[in-house]
Amino acid sequence: MTAAPPPPTIRNAVATARQRVGDEPARAVVHLRTEARMGQGTRVDLRAGAFEFAADEPTSVGGTGTAPNPVQLALTALGSCQAITYRYWAEELGLRLDAVTITVEADFDTGAFFGFPGATGVPSPTAVRSSVTLEGPESAERYETLVAAVDEHCPVLDLFTRPVPVERTVTMV
Amino acid sequence: MTAAPPPPTIRNAVATARQRVGDEPARAVVHLRTEARMGQGTRVDLRAGAFEFAADEPTSVGGTGTAPNPVQLALTALGSCQAITYRYWAEELGLRLDAVTITVEADFDTGAFFGFPGATGVPSPTAVRSSVTLEGPESAERYETLVAAVDEHCPVLDLFTRPVPVERTVTMV
Repeated sequence: MTAAPPPPTIRNAVATARQRVGDEPARAVVHLRTEARMGQGTRVDLRAGAFEFAADEPTSVGGTGTAPNPVQLALTALGSCQAITYRYWAEELGLRLDAVTITVEADFDTGAFFGFPGATGVPSPTAVRSSVTLEGPESAERYETLVAAVDEHCPVLDLFTRPVPVERTVTMV
Repeated sequence: MTAAPPPPTIRNAVATARQRVGDEPARAVVHLRTEARMGQGTRVDLRAGAFEFAADEPTSVGGTGTAPNPVQLALTALGSCQAITYRYWAEELGLRLDAVTITVEADFDTGAFFGFPGATGVPSPTAVRSSVTLEGPESAERYETLVAAVDEHCPVLDLFTRPVPVERTVTMV
């Protein structure tokens, strides 16, 4: 499959944002807010901006099986972030990129999640492997420059590989 | 909103899994695989098991605006993982839990993503804040025990706070 070339709006929008931020980097920081609400069984109704979707657990572990599970969501967050960062940075570097496909795989220790006796692993996914396929007419050297830029700037790759503290508050009603 | 009580299938399914794993913790490890494919503009078509969904960027940054962006997906992965871990561990500890609502917020430095001059931040989300609301009839002490168990066992919370290496391969075709 060959994707359409990126719309010129990407380059224009980034140029506009760069101009707006100017010499005040704090202007580039945006605030994101998402909501998760427990539904029937293990289903969780999710909202991010105007978008509504869901997470769930498979019936094999007692779930209701209506949506991807949270670890799958995290892996697709990584895959999609890589893909979009390829798109933006190909534009930024002036490279033609006809298609990007990314497979993200991982192992997940259900024993660490459920707290089974003898479980020695961590609950986070391990052995995370990202396989990127790039299609296009540029030289290998130019695509290697792109790969380096993407690995430096991809937000969710950075989230996986860097410890990101989470401040957590609980209210009981 | 009050969620229905969890189906007894959760407890049964976990007991079955515990029995199957027995004294071989490696049996509890499952393999997950997801796919991301660049579509039109900034849209990315995603697949996880039997589920198909998408990520995108908002039109304000030149995107096609059809789906949540990857960082929003990562934040909802955290919110849904917290919610589901509350559900499972409430069952495990024998606590009644009538509703769980979680808000996950973060700052995101678009300057670090786009590589704007003067950007000093990291591309990963920062100032991540998770606000958990629990509803139910148990004592505060019992819910505090639950909160501690969830914070210890939640896979995506662990993914955020622990550095998770990603092995990355690139193929050019």
